[in-house]
Amino acid sequence: MIASFAALLFAAQATTPSPTDPIAADWRPIPDDQVLVMALTGNRQVVIRLAPGYAPQHVANVGALARAHWWDGTSVYRVQENWVAQWGDASGKRPMPAGVVARPAAEFDIAAFTPAVRMSRADAYSTASGITADGWPIATNGQAAWLAHCYGTVGVARDTLPDTGAGSELFTPIGQSARRLDRNYTIIGRIIAGMEYLSALPRSNAEMGFYANDVERTPIVSVRLASDMPAATRPHFEYRAADNPRFAAMVAAKENPKPPTISLGGANVCDIPLETRPVPAD
Amino acid sequence: MIASFAALLFAAQATTPSPTDPIAADWRPIPDDQVLVMALTGNRQVVIRLAPGYAPQHVANVGALARAHWWDGTSVYRVQENWVAQWGDASGKRPMPAGVVARPAAEFDIAAFTPAVRMSRADAYSTASGITADGWPIATNGQAAWLAHCYGTVGVARDTLPDTGAGSELFTPIGQSARRLDRNYTIIGRIIAGMEYLSALPRSNAEMGFYANDVERTPIVSVRLASDMPAATRPHFEYRAADNPRFAAMVAAKENPKPPTISLGGANVCDIPLETRPVPAD
Repeated sequence: MIASFAALLFAAQATTPSPTDPIAADWRPIPDDQVLVMALTGNRQVVIRLAPGYAPQHVANVGALARAHWWDGTSVYRVQENWVAQWGDASGKRPMPAGVVARPAAEFDIAAFTPAVRMSRADAYSTASGITADGWPIATNGQAAWLAHCYGTVGVARDTLPDTGAGSELFTPIGQSARRLDRNYTIIGRIIAGMEYLSALPRSNAEMGFYANDVERTPIVSVRLASDMPAATRPHFEYRAADNPRFAAMVAAKENPKPPTISLGGANVCDIPLETRPVPAD
Repeated sequence: MIASFAALLFAAQATTPSPTDPIAADWRPIPDDQVLVMALTGNRQVVIRLAPGYAPQHVANVGALARAHWWDGTSVYRVQENWVAQWGDASGKRPMPAGVVARPAAEFDIAAFTPAVRMSRADAYSTASGITADGWPIATNGQAAWLAHCYGTVGVARDTLPDTGAGSELFTPIGQSARRLDRNYTIIGRIIAGMEYLSALPRSNAEMGFYANDVERTPIVSVRLASDMPAATRPHFEYRAADNPRFAAMVAAKENPKPPTISLGGANVCDIPLETRPVPAD
């Protein structure tokens, strides 16, 4: 918790490559049409990596909404302490554009539990968990498998019934855990940059953290797929793949840290860093 | 995630008392000398419930520091995204007052695992966990037991070696989990009011979230034990005791929510609400 420790650590890393460090081949491109860029007022950019492989219908909706510029002029209208930030159309009256399925079937579960790296311990919400080769946290109870609601995960807000979210209203956990939402909300992606522009917003004291008036809301300037942005301003990102011994060694180091740290012998899947990084344009 | 559901829920609770609702006897007073009040500029009050039963030496230090007005004029000097907010003397040069043990032995573990309510599932960091009768989250690996680093827990910052924190530099997790700090940092309490004044502070992009310059820091006006405050401004708090069937029913409902929610069959100890409430002065 004090700077001198980190200084020692960084100095050591600079001189001695660690078995937990990724090599160049471990970084893989995220396709530009799987990168969603939300611009908030004040030049605050939030970047979401989409998960079309796990929630194809809802991610297709999100793409259609972005291409229709549907979110432009909407807002972050809910920020509840130790729970979620939520954005979209606060009025609930903006009509869906063409190409959006208004009530797609819930996509809570995914096809299979096929992690590249498994956690050594179960957690309170699943019998096993791990990281997919392409860098997503997953959990299973032996029958079903699903993406885990970690900090920064982007979920589809809905009403009481499971299939009542189109993908226009989105939320991200800003508190300690939203794992109790697992299997109950569709996950369309995770925030890979600018999370602090949501997590550090003023909390609302109104019921469920919905801001009581419009002045408190944070305006959304635009939401675009990176692939629809001009080349000059289009961001590109890479993710750290998990299908390699460097990643496995990193997970093992998280689960069994070296002395003087006392090892607990395990780690939660949400505590494993799922790194991404911006890369220069072509 | 949408308001109408909550409206229905609150309406139902208003008319039908639930087996999970506390009765009057479940609320017990927190002694005023176990309530620490930190005033930040801008009339922002953060209230910490101290844990003298679990970390007596460090809590004694905290009391001595408060009585010496040691924190007055210090600051919140570190806010790291998805990790911690930390406060105390950014210069590291303010001398310890009389009565403070400069290097107390670490108080990472507690005497025993004696929960009033046990969680039904283990988690990634412990073989069992639960809530003490007096409302603290604890975990065990079968040999040792300890307070869990949940969101809002207040820990003692230190250098690399375990016994290098006196209690003057304190931190609280503002992100999804700090359970990997379990058994590695002394916990002196938990925040019971005003958490949003720490969790929503601007993040620092500097190394480990230490603000690069003084202007970014949030000044601390004063830190006092409630028992040392004038009667007119002294706050009083109660906690919800866990040694009763209402609390057990609440935990069971968290572990096994009713349809249409899909039950995961478990919950993390940090996701159990540990309620406190302010009470009027005598």
